Amino acid sequence: MTDDISEQPDVYAGLLESGLEPIGEVARHIAGWRPRHVVFTARGTSDHAALYAAYLTEIRLGVPAGLASPSAITVYGARPDLRETLAVGVSQSGWSPDLCEVVRVAREQGAHTLAVTNNPASPLAQVAELHVDVAAGHERAVAATKTYTAELLALLLLVESVRGGGRLPEEEKAALHRLPGHAETVLGDPTAEQLAARYRFADRLVTTGRGYAYPTARETALKLMETSYVAALAFSGADLLHGPLAMTQPDVPVIAIVGGGLAGASMRDVVDRLGERKAELVTVGPAGTIRTPEVDERYAPLLDILPLQRLALALALHRGEDPDTPRSLKKVTTTL
Amino acid sequence: MTDDISEQPDVYAGLLESGLEPIGEVARHIAGWRPRHVVFTARGTSDHAALYAAYLTEIRLGVPAGLASPSAITVYGARPDLRETLAVGVSQSGWSPDLCEVVRVAREQGAHTLAVTNNPASPLAQVAELHVDVAAGHERAVAATKTYTAELLALLLLVESVRGGGRLPEEEKAALHRLPGHAETVLGDPTAEQLAARYRFADRLVTTGRGYAYPTARETALKLMETSYVAALAFSGADLLHGPLAMTQPDVPVIAIVGGGLAGASMRDVVDRLGERKAELVTVGPAGTIRTPEVDERYAPLLDILPLQRLALALALHRGEDPDTPRSLKKVTTTL
Repeated sequence: MTDDISEQPDVYAGLLESGLEPIGEVARHIAGWRPRHVVFTARGTSDHAALYAAYLTEIRLGVPAGLASPSAITVYGARPDLRETLAVGVSQSGWSPDLCEVVRVAREQGAHTLAVTNNPASPLAQVAELHVDVAAGHERAVAATKTYTAELLALLLLVESVRGGGRLPEEEKAALHRLPGHAETVLGDPTAEQLAARYRFADRLVTTGRGYAYPTARETALKLMETSYVAALAFSGADLLHGPLAMTQPDVPVIAIVGGGLAGASMRDVVDRLGERKAELVTVGPAGTIRTPEVDERYAPLLDILPLQRLALALALHRGEDPDTPRSLKKVTTTL
Repeated sequence: MTDDISEQPDVYAGLLESGLEPIGEVARHIAGWRPRHVVFTARGTSDHAALYAAYLTEIRLGVPAGLASPSAITVYGARPDLRETLAVGVSQSGWSPDLCEVVRVAREQGAHTLAVTNNPASPLAQVAELHVDVAAGHERAVAATKTYTAELLALLLLVESVRGGGRLPEEEKAALHRLPGHAETVLGDPTAEQLAARYRFADRLVTTGRGYAYPTARETALKLMETSYVAALAFSGADLLHGPLAMTQPDVPVIAIVGGGLAGASMRDVVDRLGERKAELVTVGPAGTIRTPEVDERYAPLLDILPLQRLALALALHRGEDPDTPRSLKKVTTTL
């Protein structure tokens, strides 16, 4: 897991080097189709990458987007009318039978289909019309780290290339070329790792963020659950105020993603309310306890998660757990 | 909260008596519009009712449906193309400014709009073209119970009436008239309340279900967090196997909704895996630890949640908390 995490700057550099052309090609198809609606389907970590992509699709392309519940199709046999829809399956392994089934049915129901995976030879990549290879290389640990951020970057490149009519705009390309360097800087900061000792005996933990930062909150919670078995609860900042806020108290640490952009500003009220509840708060962002660079809000999820992956790994080690082989988990989970 | 909970059979009877005509009227409009896509927007408890309605919409109407992230519109100013879309805001109070804004923008962007609330005079009911009154009467406790189940029933009646072309099919009406009696029976069973003593010192708890039963798992978790401040984590059965399963262990109680239908059958693997992990498992359903009647899978969410509301209330009392006024929560939460 240590190696997977530390390879992320190289994965970014590789995708920015070799991914632009094939992703641009896929983007040209999608731009030509002009879908009226995009449905993402994914599980676990990839579901968080899909959530990020759904925000991008709505905000940057003005196309309504959402996450599908596979069970409507796989368990209940729903056959929705999906003409003019783009159905996107996201999965690092590309081996989840339920996602393959959703994409297969979506295609039958008139949707255009796209698979985003780390394995071009996988069944999911085969069943979809188009494929984006996130090119993260072999991931050793069961807990996904570099395949997650590679999915984020591939989906960002795809959406921005669709917006550019089939190619990534030059100013976007220029800004993104600073990403591997930023990632190196963030991974060089030991703050998050040092924080892990403090959580050694925490039973539960809350993570929160809004908009583009909400997937980061959810992925952080999942990573903590998978590797350290802590009860980590993720909430959008708004939903936290609608109930679960009552659960926070001084002995429940809260990790809040508070970026420099619009969603970060909208987190101010949440941070104030957490302060009233005397929650032990750690913030991640340009002015945070854990510092990450001031970048476009769309890029922040590619950087903010890095120290939080290191935190999860360090916490697992503090607890005497083996983060490489979490108990009772497999790399490929097959649910129907 | 005790009173709110015990009034639910009467709320069902009232809605089945007086709600069919006005809901049929709304359904006739929707059936006439023939939306290609339905987007629900809601927060907290109402979000779980919206999730239930999204499953119903896809499975029963064959129309793709999803839950919108309000922040794409309210924080980032997204203006997606929503022609041929039905946008539905669900809120017991009808006072959430973010939901009003989403519905207002959706209307501007070409969507047809519907509000589902417990207050016909609320801003949300005013801003939408159509309104469904869930007619639950005044809810005293901050934690929503009867407004949740009233939303479920109103949304069920709406979807089935749209399916019936603007009126509830007779066989559906006949089956639903047994619902208030079933609800009385379920509320008369003390099993769930007795179970609360066992959880007095539980720090965390996992709830799980699939398909129509997944909203029940999520609403149970929220109710436990709001009233008893336990860290309650809800997962779809499939997602639980994709990571968080590692977190379960003998001292983490698991509440699984295992109905008699298709989703219940698909939970068998999840229950087996939880058994391997020696989780302390309580099941809710016709063959469960907590027994609920064998009904059509679509109706089960209207019954399965009742004992779990009582469990949350009883657990709060065991912990010396006041479930009527949870700390730091308000009845109307205003987030932007």
